[in-house]
Amino acid sequence: MQGSIRLRIGSGGSGGGSGSAVGAGTGAGVWQDMTEHLVVVGGDAAGMSAASQARRRRGPDDLRITAFELGDFTSYSACGIPYWVGGQVAEPEALIARTPAEHREQGIDVRLRTEVTRIDLDRRRVRTRSRDDGAESWTGFDQLVIATGAQPLRPPLPGFDAPGVHGVQTLDDGAALLATLGRDVRRAVVVGGGYIGVEMAEAMVRRGLEVTMVHRSPEPMATLDPDMGRLVRVAMEGMGITVVPGAEAGEVLLDAAGRPRAVRTTAGEHPADVVVLGLGVRPRTALARTAGLPLGTSGGLLTDSSMRVQGADGAPVDGVWAGGDCVEVWNLVSGRRQHIALGTHANKHGLVIGTNIGGGRAAFPGVVGTAVSKVCELEIARTGLREREATEAGFRFDRAVIESTSRAGYYPGAGLMTVKMLAEQGTGRLLGLQIVGREGAAKRVDVGAVALTAGLTVDQVVSLDLGYAPPFSPVWDPVQVAARKLVSHRERAQQEESVG
Amino acid sequence: MQGSIRLRIGSGGSGGGSGSAVGAGTGAGVWQDMTEHLVVVGGDAAGMSAASQARRRRGPDDLRITAFELGDFTSYSACGIPYWVGGQVAEPEALIARTPAEHREQGIDVRLRTEVTRIDLDRRRVRTRSRDDGAESWTGFDQLVIATGAQPLRPPLPGFDAPGVHGVQTLDDGAALLATLGRDVRRAVVVGGGYIGVEMAEAMVRRGLEVTMVHRSPEPMATLDPDMGRLVRVAMEGMGITVVPGAEAGEVLLDAAGRPRAVRTTAGEHPADVVVLGLGVRPRTALARTAGLPLGTSGGLLTDSSMRVQGADGAPVDGVWAGGDCVEVWNLVSGRRQHIALGTHANKHGLVIGTNIGGGRAAFPGVVGTAVSKVCELEIARTGLREREATEAGFRFDRAVIESTSRAGYYPGAGLMTVKMLAEQGTGRLLGLQIVGREGAAKRVDVGAVALTAGLTVDQVVSLDLGYAPPFSPVWDPVQVAARKLVSHRERAQQEESVG
Repeated sequence: MQGSIRLRIGSGGSGGGSGSAVGAGTGAGVWQDMTEHLVVVGGDAAGMSAASQARRRRGPDDLRITAFELGDFTSYSACGIPYWVGGQVAEPEALIARTPAEHREQGIDVRLRTEVTRIDLDRRRVRTRSRDDGAESWTGFDQLVIATGAQPLRPPLPGFDAPGVHGVQTLDDGAALLATLGRDVRRAVVVGGGYIGVEMAEAMVRRGLEVTMVHRSPEPMATLDPDMGRLVRVAMEGMGITVVPGAEAGEVLLDAAGRPRAVRTTAGEHPADVVVLGLGVRPRTALARTAGLPLGTSGGLLTDSSMRVQGADGAPVDGVWAGGDCVEVWNLVSGRRQHIALGTHANKHGLVIGTNIGGGRAAFPGVVGTAVSKVCELEIARTGLREREATEAGFRFDRAVIESTSRAGYYPGAGLMTVKMLAEQGTGRLLGLQIVGREGAAKRVDVGAVALTAGLTVDQVVSLDLGYAPPFSPVWDPVQVAARKLVSHRERAQQEESVG
Repeated sequence: MQGSIRLRIGSGGSGGGSGSAVGAGTGAGVWQDMTEHLVVVGGDAAGMSAASQARRRRGPDDLRITAFELGDFTSYSACGIPYWVGGQVAEPEALIARTPAEHREQGIDVRLRTEVTRIDLDRRRVRTRSRDDGAESWTGFDQLVIATGAQPLRPPLPGFDAPGVHGVQTLDDGAALLATLGRDVRRAVVVGGGYIGVEMAEAMVRRGLEVTMVHRSPEPMATLDPDMGRLVRVAMEGMGITVVPGAEAGEVLLDAAGRPRAVRTTAGEHPADVVVLGLGVRPRTALARTAGLPLGTSGGLLTDSSMRVQGADGAPVDGVWAGGDCVEVWNLVSGRRQHIALGTHANKHGLVIGTNIGGGRAAFPGVVGTAVSKVCELEIARTGLREREATEAGFRFDRAVIESTSRAGYYPGAGLMTVKMLAEQGTGRLLGLQIVGREGAAKRVDVGAVALTAGLTVDQVVSLDLGYAPPFSPVWDPVQVAARKLVSHRERAQQEESVG
């Protein structure tokens, strides 16, 4: 089947090289095969969104689609795993947006348990190996989507690969952790204080465990400024979670059966029957790097805004796309690339790639660094730049921190929230927004996300016509209260300047 | 005291004419009195925010402030009255943001129960009359803030002024309604199906009454399109509220004691022991009109973006400001003026006026028509233009209606919401957003409000980096799902165009 030659037709207008397309069961009729072949490497959000979107736009006679997935599942919500482990979601099936069978019905040839071991960009083909029987073969492509995702960081330290030490990246990871929780476990140590860390701390609390969270930074949630992260720590401690900051992981100490009995860190020894890793992830790009594609400083692939991957010569590679957790994204506020593993970006990448392969024109302009999370009743949100990022990006900025309520103060159920906002000195341009608080705190960050995208100033934020009714907001939305404070800062600074 | 002449000093840079300033207890020393006098007509959100903000910026030696208020309260949340009547708020005091005494401590001379009966712009003075003893006098001003608010519409039909027929505009109105509810009442008829109507319908349900809501439009919430209003009606009916659309009010039929026994409308007779009016409001501007100030088509005062009132010659009147429910506001989407009585605008107006009087520079650029409300568990939100408004403003537009959930579908408590979005044909510019649904629906409209302010297209809305985590949103936020649908519309239209 490999190496059949085909007539390239203009449909799609999406580039795509000549090369080794494979006819869709029509035999290898030279010049007769009008079908392009799209190969997708990685069957989760970015890859399968791209495949689905391309399929919606181009029928099977025009575009054959094959997707290779290392595991047993497609299109599942990795972000949902903490809630499955925590018991809010009963069955892992609930986390699967679309099964392999459903993709197949759509005309996408999904090959599960199949590893792509090599990408040959010159001959436009990929090498695959079955995880079941080890069988290997080449598959040609006209269009290639690299959506290999990210892999959790696991420190190369003693004990961290023992049974009972769990990552939470895949459904298999979740199942393994639940199996451990089915044993006689009482104490959990969560290593890492980021989004996964705090979400898994909640999950362990829900499972009735004594929970300790150890992390390296001075406060948890290092994607927030420490003064906001402190609020998270205090709230978690109030929930009975032991939070150990400034703790560098050293070793998982094992019992006679080879299972965890404690985690040793620079801050002491923390008894543990189960260890959960929440140390973040890095792009899974060894395959792409071996194929000769350059990587950014974070190890992620580089793309243009159409999500075409950047080649060794710095130019986009025709017909080769990348998206999801394996790429770096452009931050519209800092003007820098960064790696952010988040399902919402992966889905957008997939939509853009699939649209472009399908003959449309779509772009992913970049991110503003929005992230939301919760631990028990505490909501945590950020967008834009935190102080360190703003400094690194070369901004001089003012900051304001205010407390407000989610509803009119007199309306029952009003929850407190703390809002921190950064704005550039001089211009007043909004740079960042962080919110920690009760019900209604997290999604308020969206106002900041849109304002950052549009480049609004804090004066403009004060003027925004946001929804107000007593059950939903004080008459000045908390975000606007913070913006008002920054406007006052700015005025004072201007007065001092004109006085001086 | 009247007619003292003073030296105008530059402080404030806010204009303000010469004229009849009154010295702050210093006697009428000609040329020696450096104090400006700010007179505020109306002691609620706009007026008292202006006064407070001006006071923060200018001390009592520089600015004397007198505020005249017709009633007994200042700075209270009229929007909170339905929740006081409904029992969620126990005491009316909770609705008062700042009492007259607190304002006085701040150095604002609040005169309650004092009606301003005339504004003399030529001689820069106002005539007042005490509601207690009828005493009348003139007070001079350098700066004047007209913040006379709005008055509820009460149809000039038989029975509508009987006891037991209640508006809900002031705290006194609320107290009167509660007194009626303390009698043996069983059946309430709410006349009007807008924000106040649905909120009062909920309040009556909470008080255990049998509730009928009669309104003129084909569906309730006529600030939504009828297809979205229908969802409100269906939900209200599901809550046991009888909704009677297309009903023109005719008469309140009274019993022998002169209290309501039924409301007669063009849709029949609806038994009622208590009648609540929710027919909307109109600007309370007779005083300003008599002073020679022009009014807009809605009867509201006209201002520039600094909130200086427009005079008879069309130019802003120096030192005369207006804000809150008595003015028309500029709609940034339609490019037209309109009257929107809403506390959030009134507070912004007050901030802008007070800043400008205080020597700063602030502007109110306009609104995008955001409004949110709820009736029992149903949240209702809109921003931008609905179909009729978009047509009237001369737009050709596409519409999309989608259903989605407030959280990831698998996450417990995910509530359904319906999202309707309008976008201009050709440009794809977002024109309007309406959301009706359960928990988490209403404040999502803020994303639309910011996007409208920034003039974003639906393609840009699809790309927005909104907060995503399973407890807060599906991976595509419902607002973006609607935007995606409009992008598809647009693509199809473009294809058809290029084919045709």
